[in-house]
Formats: sequence, structure tokens, C-alpha cells
Amino acid sequence: MLYPNKIKKENKHVPVSHANRGMDLEKLINDANSYYLNNDIAVIYKKPTPIAISMVDYSKSNPEVKGLFNQKSTLDYVGLYKGKYLDFDAKKTLNKTSFPLSNIHYHQLKHIERIINHQGIAFLIIEMNNKVYILKGETLLEFINQDQRKSIPYSYIEENGYIVNFKYNPILDYLEVLEKIYFKEGALWKK
Amino acid sequence: MLYPNKIKKENKHVPVSHANRGMDLEKLINDANSYYLNNDIAVIYKKPTPIAISMVDYSKSNPEVKGLFNQKSTLDYVGLYKGKYLDFDAKKTLNKTSFPLSNIHYHQLKHIERIINHQGIAFLIIEMNNKVYILKGETLLEFINQDQRKSIPYSYIEENGYIVNFKYNPILDYLEVLEKIYFKEGALWKK
Repeated sequence: MLYPNKIKKENKHVPVSHANRGMDLEKLINDANSYYLNNDIAVIYKKPTPIAISMVDYSKSNPEVKGLFNQKSTLDYVGLYKGKYLDFDAKKTLNKTSFPLSNIHYHQLKHIERIINHQGIAFLIIEMNNKVYILKGETLLEFINQDQRKSIPYSYIEENGYIVNFKYNPILDYLEVLEKIYFKEGALWKK
Repeated sequence: MLYPNKIKKENKHVPVSHANRGMDLEKLINDANSYYLNNDIAVIYKKPTPIAISMVDYSKSNPEVKGLFNQKSTLDYVGLYKGKYLDFDAKKTLNKTSFPLSNIHYHQLKHIERIINHQGIAFLIIEMNNKVYILKGETLLEFINQDQRKSIPYSYIEENGYIVNFKYNPILDYLEVLEKIYFKEGALWKK
């Protein structure tokens, strides 16, 4: 990430962007998950980073591990809310007009499709233009199947996604939005 | 693991045990999960081993990682079957008469309790006496709450667990047993 101050020093004419300052989407989600766990609302956690372990040094009391990053085959978060299986990823783009689909790997799309087929809830939490949206897995797959485009226009996300407004505690109460999308009968269900 | 042949050479008087030969519970579960995924029956996977990464060497094209094992706060496997959230662990004991509860950590019990409270399915797959049993999370918690014992007698597992018989494909078709326990109305439900 480029820090505005550093850019300033190197090139005075580069506009200072606030887009990449302050909000840390992953931290907000983790904070919300802690809140949900501590208040017995849901059990949602980040999956550990998969590492292919090549060496373990057992000479130490707490063995040291060496390895390589493994490609993730699923999404970052998994959880349970009101008996429903949740599986989702957090994605951020600094692009203001469209969300590049290169952010999502083929095997992740496949995973989303499987989760939906087996009656789970799959979605993305997208940070874009300093706003946070929930985009249903169904909506994402529909867009990709219809338009063979390389990115999703921001207007599409604005129209078909659901905005997550910031509040006091947790700041990013995305379950409140999921509740409206998936759990309130009739409300915002779009199958 | 000690191989019987090696033991024989070193000490002729050590009885050859077949208990730790052949069956690899984790492999059987992974094979079953691959079968379920490939046949579009369920989406169940092993959670990656949590590693607290202390160093990443970006000088290589595939960055090398160093770190320490993190204690697991949940169970080993998570998944989705017929709209239901599954969360379980595989446990093996060579003890023939009882299953030592030291195999299960307090935070794992807490996790099982949370999953059940939020209407998920939590259980253990236990290998003991060359047999494989499913023990419902509810049954496990009930035993622990009633008897302040350090182990579960084998007879209790035989009576209150559900045996998973071996078959051709997948060899350890534990979903077939879950189906009877949790999904067939009335059948084997014990709440």
C-alpha cells in the first residue's frame, strides 16, 4: 500500500487520496465476528491461511514451522447463524467505477456455486468508494453468466448489492443486513 | 508410529499389535469428503492448520513462510450438507476400555456447545477398538456434565454412539450415518 505522505514527498502533484486510509475491512469483519461470538449471536470465523508445511523443528518446546503458501480453494470466512451455513469473502477495490473480477478466482466461484446448491449462504463483502456492500453469491454468478465482462460496474453493485451502514457496535454489522436479505420472509429475497 | 516389524527386530517379546496398522482415520475422512464433493453430495473440508506466521521470505517467487503452531480453537472439519452446518473432529484412541477426555480441549467443548446452540450439527468421529463411531456433541456434553470423569467408558460409546460401517465407496460413509441420526425424521433423533 502506498502511504499518501510518501507519495507527497516523491511527487507533489499526486493528489492525496483518502480512499486507502482508515478503514480496514478485514479488521471490521473480525471485530464484528468477535462481537457476534461474545454476545452469542453467531459463530463466524476467518479460516486460517493454508500453508503447505515443509519442515517442523521439534527441537524447540514450541515447534517452528516452515512452509509455502497454498492457494486457497474456498472463501475467507465461514460460520453459522440461526442454523444457516455462511461462507463469504471480503474484497476491496480502489477502483471507483468498476470491481475487477480478477479479484475472484475461478475455484472461488465454483465454491460459491456449490454452497448455494447445497442451500448455504454465500456472498461477498465489497469495499468500494468508501462504502461497504454485500453482494449475494447468486447475484455475482448471474452477472458473470450473463455478461462476459472483466469487471462489475459500480452502478450494478449499487443497484443489486445491499449497503452495510456503519453503526456503533459492531461498526460493521453485516449480519443485520444478511437478516434482511435472507432471513426476513419475503423482505429482500431475490432468488 | 511404531511399525510392528521394527518392534519385532528390536525386542522379540513385544506383542505385535494390529491396532495401529492400516486404518488412517484422517485419510478415510478426507477421501469421503472428496467423494462427497466430486459427487455433489456435500461440501466438507478440513480446516487448515492455524500457524502464527512470524516471517515471510518474499525473495523467492513462491514466498517461504516461517511460524509457530497456533492452538486450534475449533474442530478440524467444517461443512455444509443439505442446508445444515456441520462441525466435527476426528479422534483416535488406542485405549480399549475408555476414551480419555484429555483428547478434547475445553475450548473445543465450548465450540461444540456454541454450534449446537446455533442449530448446527457438531459431533466427533471416534476410532476405537478398530471401529469408528459417531458421537453426537449433545451426547458428549451430557456425559461430561453428568459424570465428572476423566474418560468415557467404551460401553458408553457403544451404546450412545452410532457405528460407521465400512463400505466400498466411500469407505467411511459417515454422512449415511448422519443422515439417520439427524435427517430422517423421528428415526434416531435423541435430543
